[in-house]
Amino acid sequence: MLNRDSNHHYDCNGIKLKDLAEQYGTPLYVYSADQIRNNISLLKEALEENFESYRIQYAVKANTNPHILNIVKETGIGADCSSPLELRLAKQVGFPMDRSTYTGNYESPEDLTRALESGINLNLDDYHRIDDLLKIGVPEFVSFRINPGIGRGGFEQIVTGGADAKFGFPYEKTREAYKKAKEAGVKRFGIHMMTGSNILEPFYFAEITQKLFTIIENSINDLGIELEFINIGGGLGVPYTPEEATLNLKQAFKMVSEVFKQQIPRLNIGNPEIALEPGRFLMANAGVLLSSITHVKHSYRNYIGIDGGMSTLLRPAMYKAYHEVNIDGEDQTQKTDSKYLICGQICENSDIHPMERSFHNPKAGNLIIVENAGAYGFTMSSNYNNRPRPAELLIDGKEHKIIRIRETEEHVLKNVPDFELA
Amino acid sequence: MLNRDSNHHYDCNGIKLKDLAEQYGTPLYVYSADQIRNNISLLKEALEENFESYRIQYAVKANTNPHILNIVKETGIGADCSSPLELRLAKQVGFPMDRSTYTGNYESPEDLTRALESGINLNLDDYHRIDDLLKIGVPEFVSFRINPGIGRGGFEQIVTGGADAKFGFPYEKTREAYKKAKEAGVKRFGIHMMTGSNILEPFYFAEITQKLFTIIENSINDLGIELEFINIGGGLGVPYTPEEATLNLKQAFKMVSEVFKQQIPRLNIGNPEIALEPGRFLMANAGVLLSSITHVKHSYRNYIGIDGGMSTLLRPAMYKAYHEVNIDGEDQTQKTDSKYLICGQICENSDIHPMERSFHNPKAGNLIIVENAGAYGFTMSSNYNNRPRPAELLIDGKEHKIIRIRETEEHVLKNVPDFELA
Repeated sequence: MLNRDSNHHYDCNGIKLKDLAEQYGTPLYVYSADQIRNNISLLKEALEENFESYRIQYAVKANTNPHILNIVKETGIGADCSSPLELRLAKQVGFPMDRSTYTGNYESPEDLTRALESGINLNLDDYHRIDDLLKIGVPEFVSFRINPGIGRGGFEQIVTGGADAKFGFPYEKTREAYKKAKEAGVKRFGIHMMTGSNILEPFYFAEITQKLFTIIENSINDLGIELEFINIGGGLGVPYTPEEATLNLKQAFKMVSEVFKQQIPRLNIGNPEIALEPGRFLMANAGVLLSSITHVKHSYRNYIGIDGGMSTLLRPAMYKAYHEVNIDGEDQTQKTDSKYLICGQICENSDIHPMERSFHNPKAGNLIIVENAGAYGFTMSSNYNNRPRPAELLIDGKEHKIIRIRETEEHVLKNVPDFELA
Repeated sequence: MLNRDSNHHYDCNGIKLKDLAEQYGTPLYVYSADQIRNNISLLKEALEENFESYRIQYAVKANTNPHILNIVKETGIGADCSSPLELRLAKQVGFPMDRSTYTGNYESPEDLTRALESGINLNLDDYHRIDDLLKIGVPEFVSFRINPGIGRGGFEQIVTGGADAKFGFPYEKTREAYKKAKEAGVKRFGIHMMTGSNILEPFYFAEITQKLFTIIENSINDLGIELEFINIGGGLGVPYTPEEATLNLKQAFKMVSEVFKQQIPRLNIGNPEIALEPGRFLMANAGVLLSSITHVKHSYRNYIGIDGGMSTLLRPAMYKAYHEVNIDGEDQTQKTDSKYLICGQICENSDIHPMERSFHNPKAGNLIIVENAGAYGFTMSSNYNNRPRPAELLIDGKEHKIIRIRETEEHVLKNVPDFELA
């Protein structure tokens, strides 16, 4: 989403990031509508080359700002929702409910009721939920989230399949699940698996697809069920470090499609579409976090303190996740031996970006650009240490607008009764 | 703070937790004012036995609800603030600014200005900040945060001293720091060190105190500086697991006081008070999180899903921190071989409490009590997965009141312009 001019200043569609930082303050999340559309196009293209039809369902949790949802919705894809408010937003924005799913986990009865009443396709994390659903109404459509017993992820915390995952149910129960649902009166079906997040290895997707077909063949092939989709989850990775290569989408989906072409004619499951629920892949590189250097300290190591720490962007503290960090106006082609750790202002030592980085002459007031901050950025922000949450800004073509105003100190205290900030 | 009746129902001062959950819903943070007062009394007692005078400065970040701050303030102790809003709250609630400190790190110029203007004692994370302060005004009082080169903590992330800590500055620079400050016109001084958090080992506190005195002797003893306090930080631990023993406060401070008694007469630093900045120690066991079981799943392992996951209480996901979890109304003296993992509803596999636990027959709708949730609970909560943040409730004697209303879905979207939740 970014360009750099000859003075090493960053811009997006000609809009200078330093001008935005000056006008709106920091920390500030900045998103590019064009980059989001471009990411969706890339994915559509790779799917269209290999499949007659497909479903892309945007994983709303990655970035839930309604103005972002609007841009995604206008590309015609569906949504995947993981909570009642995500569903409410997706429906209000206008995502097609019949091309979207609700993938909860450990839903309360209220969550289930709201999902059922919305008309969205239910993707159930446990087949026993059919019993709970029967108490409130039989859904016409049901998909089940199968745990195939294997999983992978960028970090341990985001592996979502395998024996240690809280998601889905053991694949050995697949037959029982679909039988139960069919007997309960469910008419239309899908199947789902999400084994991990941020995968850059193209072979992985064919591997899990093959596994899912094996489960289908051994479990439900003789039940007379037609699957409307086979959802292989999200997990499409993005390169966060300079050493990581971009996921080869066309190669990944060529291999996945070969599995589909080989398996579907052999099986008695109708003609299911492939379904995907990307979040990070559509959003990560469409957002940056603008932050200001507040102080540079030379201690046992050198530290660059910034105003967008773990209360603003949790990923470095939570997962030791790497984000590219650059200083606006600095010539990075010139080598330097000065190494710095980048840290936030939160009173906790986890508030540090992993790995020392090279910078020339960082100074208080310099503008810092944290890349790949469009997914799981604002959504995980907090008021830790009583820091108000940042603003969000959207660049669309040559226009830009604030899509979430900066939280004030008064906002932070708004829900405290019998107290008013003096 | 809790009692259990013969039917294994929990109450606080006779107020049944299940009644609170029914009336106010879950997830719900419940705090005990009496327990907070009791914790402060315990600490005062241990200090009074060993010191003529002392300063306790509550680390506001542990629990920042203004109604909680009020209870703490009424016990007469001071506050330690780590951000401008914490300072604003502490001042408004009425903490004595001359017995409180502002311990920032990587403060922006605005942060520093606000701290200076408030009249609070400044505790500087970097001695170079004196130069920044000179631009806005010379403070009468300054304390420095020394990194003694050693540290310890309950987890790696909360070790706040040592060569890998972003806090303080190398102790080798102590002399330069105080000289610089004195020459700049600072009149009154303190010294500070905070090496780690949640320490249960009483000897540790004497050890770091001795280290700090060694630094004082070698660095500033001949500068003609009188220290008003020697702040050995917080770090007073609480037992989170059943195996951990309570920190022996009297033993810890007896040993610390012996170091004081031995060292102060030898040195030329006036007659400094001991200062402490406990947060967790005052708050952790004064709060519980009430949560409801939303679903019980038998997958490769057994899972108890609750409505108070990582968006409500981040510690288990972030640090794999252990919290005691009990079911209201369950007889825990009866053994069972059924083991469960407790997890939240967030779409991420880190949303699990560490370690399998034994329960008899957990069911959806059961009330779950997560203990030791009074510190770093609500303060780290977020809207991840679009889950609204919980309510907070305070029990004081036989009375109770909501001290933060439950966030609504509308609240979550309040700062999004040109959008209204339908």
